[in-house]
Amino acid sequence: MEALPELEEGLVAPLDRDPSQPLLQKDRLTNATTGISHMAIVGADGSLIESLDYEVLESDLFKQDWRARTQCEVLQYVILKWTFAFLVGLFTGLVGIIINVAVENIAGAKLMYTAKLIYSNQLVLAFSLVTGCNVVLVLCSALLCVYLGPAAAGSGIPEVKAYLNGVDAPEILSPKTLFVKVLGSIGSVAGGLYVGKEGPLVHIGACIASLLGQGGSRKHHLTFSWLRLFKNDRDRRDLVTCGAAAGVAAAFRAPVGGVLFALEEAASWWRSSLLWRTFFTTAVVAVVLRLGSNWCRVGHCGLFGKGGLIMFDVSKGSSTYGFPELFAVMILGLSGGILGSLFNALNTRICIFYAKNFNLKGPAAKIFLACFVAVVTSVCCFGLPWLAPCRPCPQLTLPYECPTYDRSGNFKSFHCPTGQYNDLAGLVFTTNDDAIRNLFSTGTQKEYHYTSIIIFFVASYIMALLTYGIAVPSGLFIPVILCGATYGRLIGMLSTTMYDLKGLDEGVYAVLGAAAFLGGSMRMTVSLCVILLELTNNLSMLPLIMLVLLASKTVGDSFNMAIYNLHLKIKGFPILEAHPEPFMHQLTARDAVKSPLVKFSPVERVGNVMHILRTTKHSAFPVIEEPLSPKATFAGLVLRSHLLILLKKKDFYFTRSSSTMSCRKISSGEFAKPGSGKGLTIEDIEVTPEEEDMYVILHPIINASPYTVLDTMSLAKAYTLFRQLGLRHICVMPRKPEGEPILGILTRHDFMHDHLLSIHPHLRSSLLKDRSFLRQASSDRHP
Amino acid sequence: MEALPELEEGLVAPLDRDPSQPLLQKDRLTNATTGISHMAIVGADGSLIESLDYEVLESDLFKQDWRARTQCEVLQYVILKWTFAFLVGLFTGLVGIIINVAVENIAGAKLMYTAKLIYSNQLVLAFSLVTGCNVVLVLCSALLCVYLGPAAAGSGIPEVKAYLNGVDAPEILSPKTLFVKVLGSIGSVAGGLYVGKEGPLVHIGACIASLLGQGGSRKHHLTFSWLRLFKNDRDRRDLVTCGAAAGVAAAFRAPVGGVLFALEEAASWWRSSLLWRTFFTTAVVAVVLRLGSNWCRVGHCGLFGKGGLIMFDVSKGSSTYGFPELFAVMILGLSGGILGSLFNALNTRICIFYAKNFNLKGPAAKIFLACFVAVVTSVCCFGLPWLAPCRPCPQLTLPYECPTYDRSGNFKSFHCPTGQYNDLAGLVFTTNDDAIRNLFSTGTQKEYHYTSIIIFFVASYIMALLTYGIAVPSGLFIPVILCGATYGRLIGMLSTTMYDLKGLDEGVYAVLGAAAFLGGSMRMTVSLCVILLELTNNLSMLPLIMLVLLASKTVGDSFNMAIYNLHLKIKGFPILEAHPEPFMHQLTARDAVKSPLVKFSPVERVGNVMHILRTTKHSAFPVIEEPLSPKATFAGLVLRSHLLILLKKKDFYFTRSSSTMSCRKISSGEFAKPGSGKGLTIEDIEVTPEEEDMYVILHPIINASPYTVLDTMSLAKAYTLFRQLGLRHICVMPRKPEGEPILGILTRHDFMHDHLLSIHPHLRSSLLKDRSFLRQASSDRHP
Repeated sequence: MEALPELEEGLVAPLDRDPSQPLLQKDRLTNATTGISHMAIVGADGSLIESLDYEVLESDLFKQDWRARTQCEVLQYVILKWTFAFLVGLFTGLVGIIINVAVENIAGAKLMYTAKLIYSNQLVLAFSLVTGCNVVLVLCSALLCVYLGPAAAGSGIPEVKAYLNGVDAPEILSPKTLFVKVLGSIGSVAGGLYVGKEGPLVHIGACIASLLGQGGSRKHHLTFSWLRLFKNDRDRRDLVTCGAAAGVAAAFRAPVGGVLFALEEAASWWRSSLLWRTFFTTAVVAVVLRLGSNWCRVGHCGLFGKGGLIMFDVSKGSSTYGFPELFAVMILGLSGGILGSLFNALNTRICIFYAKNFNLKGPAAKIFLACFVAVVTSVCCFGLPWLAPCRPCPQLTLPYECPTYDRSGNFKSFHCPTGQYNDLAGLVFTTNDDAIRNLFSTGTQKEYHYTSIIIFFVASYIMALLTYGIAVPSGLFIPVILCGATYGRLIGMLSTTMYDLKGLDEGVYAVLGAAAFLGGSMRMTVSLCVILLELTNNLSMLPLIMLVLLASKTVGDSFNMAIYNLHLKIKGFPILEAHPEPFMHQLTARDAVKSPLVKFSPVERVGNVMHILRTTKHSAFPVIEEPLSPKATFAGLVLRSHLLILLKKKDFYFTRSSSTMSCRKISSGEFAKPGSGKGLTIEDIEVTPEEEDMYVILHPIINASPYTVLDTMSLAKAYTLFRQLGLRHICVMPRKPEGEPILGILTRHDFMHDHLLSIHPHLRSSLLKDRSFLRQASSDRHP
Repeated sequence: MEALPELEEGLVAPLDRDPSQPLLQKDRLTNATTGISHMAIVGADGSLIESLDYEVLESDLFKQDWRARTQCEVLQYVILKWTFAFLVGLFTGLVGIIINVAVENIAGAKLMYTAKLIYSNQLVLAFSLVTGCNVVLVLCSALLCVYLGPAAAGSGIPEVKAYLNGVDAPEILSPKTLFVKVLGSIGSVAGGLYVGKEGPLVHIGACIASLLGQGGSRKHHLTFSWLRLFKNDRDRRDLVTCGAAAGVAAAFRAPVGGVLFALEEAASWWRSSLLWRTFFTTAVVAVVLRLGSNWCRVGHCGLFGKGGLIMFDVSKGSSTYGFPELFAVMILGLSGGILGSLFNALNTRICIFYAKNFNLKGPAAKIFLACFVAVVTSVCCFGLPWLAPCRPCPQLTLPYECPTYDRSGNFKSFHCPTGQYNDLAGLVFTTNDDAIRNLFSTGTQKEYHYTSIIIFFVASYIMALLTYGIAVPSGLFIPVILCGATYGRLIGMLSTTMYDLKGLDEGVYAVLGAAAFLGGSMRMTVSLCVILLELTNNLSMLPLIMLVLLASKTVGDSFNMAIYNLHLKIKGFPILEAHPEPFMHQLTARDAVKSPLVKFSPVERVGNVMHILRTTKHSAFPVIEEPLSPKATFAGLVLRSHLLILLKKKDFYFTRSSSTMSCRKISSGEFAKPGSGKGLTIEDIEVTPEEEDMYVILHPIINASPYTVLDTMSLAKAYTLFRQLGLRHICVMPRKPEGEPILGILTRHDFMHDHLLSIHPHLRSSLLKDRSFLRQASSDRHP
């Protein structure tokens, strides 16, 4: 069993870990694609991935703080909360516009100059121009990604999902990541790769929200006393949820779809008041986008794509249908589900292949891989149109010019003589957005020919598979929509020409194909439905879209997990699923706790505290009162982070008798939780030998009422408590009053599939008997 | 302080209570409108309202049952779950079509004959016909409601919300209620009242789901062994959520809106897998509706309204806008919020007035009230058009005929000579759906005149206020949309004619007005947004609708609660809000528990059990092991319902020594929870004196791992646990190991605002200092 310590970094999100602690192991890696094994060995032992904590701490200090809070402060808090939601919407909307304008201008200029060179028959020069531009753009993106912000690679949606599930991995929402994500996605999208800017915009929205929610920067003296109200994981989670929604709203110009995406896909916890705030944020995004696109339409932005607030208008597509059309649509949905889940399976394998063969070889290999994909994409872009013959323009009166020479337009001239067009060039020799617009365009029957559509489908499917996994910011929505729309158009051409079904337009079939692939790969339902409606502005398609999504998700779910969940597993984030695994019903809380328990007294020797903090990695410790009461009593939990602050402040005493004085030097604001990766570590604390013999009083920082479970409770039931309330620690109490007053503490690590199976290997056999969908179903039964 | 024992019944939902236990008290009633006081004195003492229980019980019997469950049974369960979801969608869709067709035909025939009589100038006869029809229809509806299914009165959405919040009041989802709701809403809507069928359809969907989820009927020998898998509150809750979504989907032909309504307004607990199932249900509804409307369009249904799947098509309404239009829209939103919240306040007062002065006087008074409102409505319907002069038909080429004589159409002839129309008749002398369609119609500038619109706005606002509260099934969506659309059209006429703003069509203003009123009264956001989009099919209005909803909800929230929440309070359902009240942070769990604790031993004398069950009303009892262990140990909880089943089965022993035998006669299926109101009561048990001296062994039914909290935990934190996990009991454990091993049990009753304030009166003063919105904000801070 060979350890691959650098693998995780190689994949996408490098985590700055102790290299002596292998995070992933080879046999687990190969298991990942089967969807059985969590690959995270994180939590207590050695990793810097931490768990977020949504529990309300009830220590004396915090209670005093809460009681002392004035009406004015509460009002400040409310105003601030809405201001932040507004700012998240504003900034995300602006970044969305900037990325859009940058991509449209760079890619537009590139394609225009190339088209001119082709027109004047300088083919070698044209090919060099396309390839050169693409390689340079992708290279910039990859360099940024590899050297500055490795967490910015990929779509970013798995990272946002992980954060909102309570996983605090370093750098995933940092300013560096934000910077790299913005520039990198401009590079990769403008560089012609088969990637979108939608996933990255979700990550960007979340980064912006997280930065706002840090509560000022102590380093840059920008912190204000009233910002401390925001220094907790709950408020940050809410803001990041708003950010994710704003990202989708900015990417698809779909404000309601954004709210639903955040609700259905991104968030693990949800409250009705959050729905309302998220709605506000996406409304701000919609207003910003509308103002921006009005401003750009006047010509301030150079080249600017069509569309306005509705990106791909299909409202003129006829959609009357009877049973024959419904049959075609169901076929589309079912086969879309198969192709979508096949995409998930193949992409996961390709990512693991990339990880082993390129990413592990160091930065140069990663950059080489990105450039190689850029070259292959350029060859497709320039080479494929030559496979399609020139065809005469249709004689119909269309709202589309034929042929066109510039960047956008359905009927591209490419190398064809006047009056003729190259249908494949309209799909590959253009931006991805324009290709989708062409595929969705209605009233253009017989524009495409079977060979061209099939060639493009195969090429886009393969390129999408190869591209998602290289070290550049790369959204997955656009490539999946592209493949799906091509496939849908193909089915549409088959039904309209071969079976003479005239009810649905080919553009409508393309939209349904996109829905089928999205459903088959991403497995969302309501949010995809609303996003597609907001993209295409044709409500009469709604029942069809719903049917297609139902069919493709059902088919897809019977093969594998959603693509983002697969990537979460590959990346090794310790995610808590919504439901416990059925085998957890066979274990009790007592079976999962570790021994021996490391504990403190309410008044503890400083040297002792230092020793324990140095030798363990636990993030919380139980406090046991022993001397005074007739029997040991559980006093509560203290957090490692709070202990470190107490030690840093050197609030020490010479005697054990605590009397009433406590924490003279420290206000509760000092204990507010800093942003990820900014807390103290034990190395920051220096204690003299004299101080080591003094005492520290823990009373004010003891959380006297942590959530507890009895040791007889099944692990599944404890899991429900842990997951639903977003806890970081659960105390396991003995049912029988003999012995220790507390048996142990359950953390996220203790609920991990792999960890449980490693300490209870006998469960592995019972697990193998369960079939995947039945497992899911029965876990559903025990919420 | 005068007790009003029958008041609750008088209001809307009568609860078959012990009359010696006053449910509502007068001072609480008058406080209701201020939104401060919970009026429920339910829970442990005397009421038949029970709490639902979503906890997974871990007793030996259930564990064995779970372990014995085969793969086949799990598969059965999964198939059944989806079959039920399908059936809920199918039946709700069918009932929706039936109600629609019945209303269209009855109301259409009534209006046509009346129009003919008016045309032949037989005015007295015409008036008698309208009034007679309306009174007869409303009378039938009221008779059914008062004598057969009193729980069917009103909209039903508060009842569904209460059920999904965990309140199990008798009859709210019973077959009788379903029957009355279907027939009653046909009567009240066809009877011309200012009510809709939308709220009732939500209730109907929930009733259908609840009946399916009862798991067969033991009385009618229709129960199957595999249906026992469904005999728990969790699965029933999921089904009822699907039913509520299906209701909205059937009412508005808005499948996505239905899912979001269930999510945002109806449900208190939500899981992602439920989203997916709800989506499936509403997709079924959409398909059923489409098939039904296709079938009806051929002429199978007699008269049938326009619209197809999109009820009010506004897609042709221009919606280009700049800052002047935005200003008008914001004014509309803000004033809509004021008028909407005023509606809530006035309607609550009117309902309380009705309760005191009519409903308390017995059934006759209730029926008189309903008939009186029907007469007033008829007078409006027939009388108001005479206030508007006849106007010549516009000379524009319109898609609308002018004038029309039959039921629907924008330009009604009424009593006018040829070539002229009565604009007010097009609003009042028609069905509510057609009136809304006329108000939303685009391209009909200057159709309405100021006086007519103002008269209709005042009339519809007053009639909507007066109607919601009488003893017939009455939806609130349609009247609110009607008022809002009229108000919006008025603002639209002002801006287009007086300020010459041509960007937005008057029909678009009407839609925005409806959004403003809905937002101001019902306070939903995303779901209203999507429902309105699905109703009107114009996506370019989306940013405007979002802005209007934000404005009106913000304004409304600063005055009072949402209308359904106000009605929940009036009806006295013990609802658990999403967040604890801030004053709960000042109490600990120990402060809320009652003493003395009633407890059992693991092996208990039958007579003792009978005595305790007769003398207390508690629904669960702690079991304490005393004799063997050195110290008393908490063994777990037993439920009253399980004890009753154990007693009924007479599984008694002669000696205390339990040995290993236990529950020889009983399978776990016997303990499955029956539907509401169907369980055993202590009166059903008969025990002979000899049996009273025998022993009953509780071991197999002890839930050994209930959720517990330490007594030092603040009540707010315990509330979060209780609410988030949907519990019925929380055990309060002592932190110090002296004394009893368990201090008490917290139930829904113990978290009720009024109950807490009655046992801790000193908190009342601190409460008054808090301003309402600040209270909300700070409760938000401590989730």
